[in-house]
Amino acid sequence: MSFHIVLVNPEIPANTGNIARTCAATGTHLHLVRPLGFSTDDKVLKRAGLDYWHSVHITYYDSFEEVKAANPEARFFFASTRVTKRYSDFEFRDGDFFVFGKETKGLPQEMLDAHPDTCMRIPMTDKVRSLNLANSAAIVVFEALRQNDFPLS
Amino acid sequence: MSFHIVLVNPEIPANTGNIARTCAATGTHLHLVRPLGFSTDDKVLKRAGLDYWHSVHITYYDSFEEVKAANPEARFFFASTRVTKRYSDFEFRDGDFFVFGKETKGLPQEMLDAHPDTCMRIPMTDKVRSLNLANSAAIVVFEALRQNDFPLS
Repeated sequence: MSFHIVLVNPEIPANTGNIARTCAATGTHLHLVRPLGFSTDDKVLKRAGLDYWHSVHITYYDSFEEVKAANPEARFFFASTRVTKRYSDFEFRDGDFFVFGKETKGLPQEMLDAHPDTCMRIPMTDKVRSLNLANSAAIVVFEALRQNDFPLS
Repeated sequence: MSFHIVLVNPEIPANTGNIARTCAATGTHLHLVRPLGFSTDDKVLKRAGLDYWHSVHITYYDSFEEVKAANPEARFFFASTRVTKRYSDFEFRDGDFFVFGKETKGLPQEMLDAHPDTCMRIPMTDKVRSLNLANSAAIVVFEALRQNDFPLS
């Protein structure tokens, strides 16, 4: 059993490194959509994720459409601060994909508009614009794991 | 309503900065037990948390005993990879304190031994030693919020 995290154009290597660590800790596959805001042999990325990078199943793409085409049966859930339905109100299951946008801007509005039934919000106060990207990914993956009784091999 | 995060001797400023951002996002109070591995006016901490640092209720202490003495009625939960009961098996309520140790070593064994009924584990594979500290804190706080129907003001 495994879940999937898709990062669309992530900008900050330490965040992707932390997400790789979460993926290694949970058997989650990582899907990275270029352009990335860093080189994957970047020193900072290595420092943040070196011990874990090779424990993670990582696939690279040039567009989100490629991710969908490669996984035609998958369910995709889109994290955004601009939607209302809570992430914890969905019932996640084996093979689900969780999609996160770039740190500064989130996912493109067109992508949210194209998937109105599977956009999810992590509730938060109005004191922040958003949570840290790696924290958001961890919160959603661990909710999916919790719902499925932590199927960690 | 609010929860509390206690960081005992945190070492890496970016982690504490990210946790401050999570606290701002959730109305969670932050309690920092010295020594800290950084100055709280450190440039890196400011970069990681500047926009949020003054939105967070932060209290400083010189020992964990001071935290307990200042909050005699509180329930304290201790995060560790060296225990077995899952964090999501506890029923959290308003005012609970979640205690996390330093990045490299976690909480002192004596502290875990002194509170055997309220130690909690975030389940993970054996591919990693631990999750990132800020991710761990976010996972636990959002589980507590979820259980209480996201009481965010």
